[in-house]
Amino acid sequence: MPKPNRPLPLGTPAGVEVLTKILTQGPIPRVQIARRTGLSQAAVTKAVAPLIDAGFVTDHPAVTEETVPGRSELGIGRPVSPLTVVADSVSVIGLKVTPTDLIGVTTDFKAGIRAVRHRQLPDTSVGTVLERLADLASELIGTLEDKTDPAGPLVGIGVAVSGDVDAGHGYVRDSPFMGWRNVPVAELLGEKLDVPVVVSNDVRALTVAEHWFGVGVDADSFAVVTIGSGVGCGLYVNGEVVQGAHGVSGELGHLPLAPGNLVCTCGRRGCVETVASSDAILARIRETTGQPELDLSGAIQLAHRGDAHAREAFDRAGEVIGSALAAMVNLVGPELVVIAGEGVADYDLYDQRMRQTFAEHAFGAAGDCRLMLRSHTFDDWARGAAATVIRSYVRGESPFKR
Amino acid sequence: MPKPNRPLPLGTPAGVEVLTKILTQGPIPRVQIARRTGLSQAAVTKAVAPLIDAGFVTDHPAVTEETVPGRSELGIGRPVSPLTVVADSVSVIGLKVTPTDLIGVTTDFKAGIRAVRHRQLPDTSVGTVLERLADLASELIGTLEDKTDPAGPLVGIGVAVSGDVDAGHGYVRDSPFMGWRNVPVAELLGEKLDVPVVVSNDVRALTVAEHWFGVGVDADSFAVVTIGSGVGCGLYVNGEVVQGAHGVSGELGHLPLAPGNLVCTCGRRGCVETVASSDAILARIRETTGQPELDLSGAIQLAHRGDAHAREAFDRAGEVIGSALAAMVNLVGPELVVIAGEGVADYDLYDQRMRQTFAEHAFGAAGDCRLMLRSHTFDDWARGAAATVIRSYVRGESPFKR
Ligand SMILES: [Zn+2]
Ligand SMILES: [Zn+2]
Repeated sequence: MPKPNRPLPLGTPAGVEVLTKILTQGPIPRVQIARRTGLSQAAVTKAVAPLIDAGFVTDHPAVTEETVPGRSELGIGRPVSPLTVVADSVSVIGLKVTPTDLIGVTTDFKAGIRAVRHRQLPDTSVGTVLERLADLASELIGTLEDKTDPAGPLVGIGVAVSGDVDAGHGYVRDSPFMGWRNVPVAELLGEKLDVPVVVSNDVRALTVAEHWFGVGVDADSFAVVTIGSGVGCGLYVNGEVVQGAHGVSGELGHLPLAPGNLVCTCGRRGCVETVASSDAILARIRETTGQPELDLSGAIQLAHRGDAHAREAFDRAGEVIGSALAAMVNLVGPELVVIAGEGVADYDLYDQRMRQTFAEHAFGAAGDCRLMLRSHTFDDWARGAAATVIRSYVRGESPFKR
Repeated sequence: MPKPNRPLPLGTPAGVEVLTKILTQGPIPRVQIARRTGLSQAAVTKAVAPLIDAGFVTDHPAVTEETVPGRSELGIGRPVSPLTVVADSVSVIGLKVTPTDLIGVTTDFKAGIRAVRHRQLPDTSVGTVLERLADLASELIGTLEDKTDPAGPLVGIGVAVSGDVDAGHGYVRDSPFMGWRNVPVAELLGEKLDVPVVVSNDVRALTVAEHWFGVGVDADSFAVVTIGSGVGCGLYVNGEVVQGAHGVSGELGHLPLAPGNLVCTCGRRGCVETVASSDAILARIRETTGQPELDLSGAIQLAHRGDAHAREAFDRAGEVIGSALAAMVNLVGPELVVIAGEGVADYDLYDQRMRQTFAEHAFGAAGDCRLMLRSHTFDDWARGAAATVIRSYVRGESPFKR
């Protein structure tokens, strides 16, 4: 496996905790880091010093309490020196794989997107996809060398793929969308590029990005629900993204909540996706309207014009998504549910029925969670892949083992 | 609110972590506590000293590595001094409330049961139940004063009730089984007895007991699924029992997985319990056999004798429990599922169908989790209530705020 470019001077779990706080909650004064981690101020200062020396962290220009969040904790008028991460101290690449396209981004240390590139795929064979992924990554690496806008050294590449992914070992166990089984993506791509590679389930990658750089900074628990060609769910509970003991979790699209006569792409009966995936909605509308040539945007147009058959298919989808949300909320009880549509063009078509069914089946106070709609682009998925690299890099997890 | 009897000398989060490790994983040497918490050995020693002085923790007689778990970490043949909690340094009372009975236990600091007492309830009115609870607790307090078997001072009383419980404020928001809404149990009972009271959802209390004193010591994640007059679920993920942002989680009995024509005791349609609770099974068998006077043990006998109607009702229950387990596992992906029956007399009647349906709907590697059957008695529920007291006491959570 390739060695990381720019090792972090982190010797202890305390150091990781301190850097994580600065990265996700900075600018933040030392005294607040100490309060929020339970470490002594001396321990915080000790952990921070080598990070500052190595250029990963900086003392923000001294400011007074008014400009710092949580200032009431700090006493009146005392100047504080909040710590912040040096965004350009490292660069990261995030890649999202879909059956038809590859989407890639470069980001800084704070998962801020710098460059975006897309590639079409002629087929989904492992050979083709890996070759194009390497091409795309090389092009993105080229953007990092732009002298007019200097970026930090590249530390790793993240790849997000739908399906059952063994993130620890960097391979895709089973991706029905791609038709892949047991593909060692980290090894294959790492060999081509000589850069550490982190492979993740795509929905979980999105959840990691929300945890470190999005809604997770303010919410004690949340779920990210993705609706589109598949229905997925990432869960953040008890301070961490839920991974699943065997690498599977958040499979909202495969809860047995739909009629048992429908067979899912996964081979099981009655999965949510048999009714709620965009393919399932389109197939239903083709069938009920007798228009086998209809495409998805045509189907959405039909529904917006009030066609009863088209509306019925979206209603069915909204209903089963609503009961899936209720099932998830009744089990996990998150504070917030972020509903991330691949495109929100059709969201209004199932929103009402979804909320109604959710309200019917949400149990007691579990129904008090906020449902928040968020439009997601493919760039966000790629940024999620970058976020998984940043997290593994900071934590010293494979392939960044210290 | 009454004051705790015997304050713990814990000033810092590190101290809480150290005591928790000793309590749940002891006997454990200082060096292992340091490794597992990421604290320095000096910090461990500093946290332990006042606990030893105050008699909560003791140095176990020095032993050689052979008798200590994890000895390979310790080097060969070196004597170590593992730390252990003094079980009799405190006592705790746990009470479980059901619509017909109260069950109470006293335990030591390690949730070891010392005494058990039961009380029948003439009705479920708040006044009656609170009075009997106070009586039962007084009787249990009496057992602690037995001079021939000295127990530690009582630090708190735990009460476990099914339904939506606000543990932080000590009141039952909504318990359909009891017919209670917004009952401030901690306040009412605390006034009668002048002892701090912790109130919990009963399934979550059972899960806390498994977390600190049961399977949780070895499993990174697990679910406890209780099957009987209700169907419940406690989840332990990412190092903590899942509470739910609004106090609701693990409501496996109210996932919308049953036919929509059946109305649940909670008022919703299609809940798992409409088919799988013991009342639902009995009602079904009474109806299909035309024997309205049948009781549950009679129904179980019928099914064991092979009566087709009785078998069908258990099959239906097994099927919906199996899909509920699959739904939970697909979402959360625990390592282990402990299935805790109120009585396991009837378990064989739905076991096969349950496992079959679970296997049909478990997604990929999520289905690799172990399913473990565990017979639970009402005493275990009461012990769960005691475990919640021990946890709040150690953590300094309400009503033990330090
Ligand atoms: Zn499926
Ligand atoms: Zn219900």
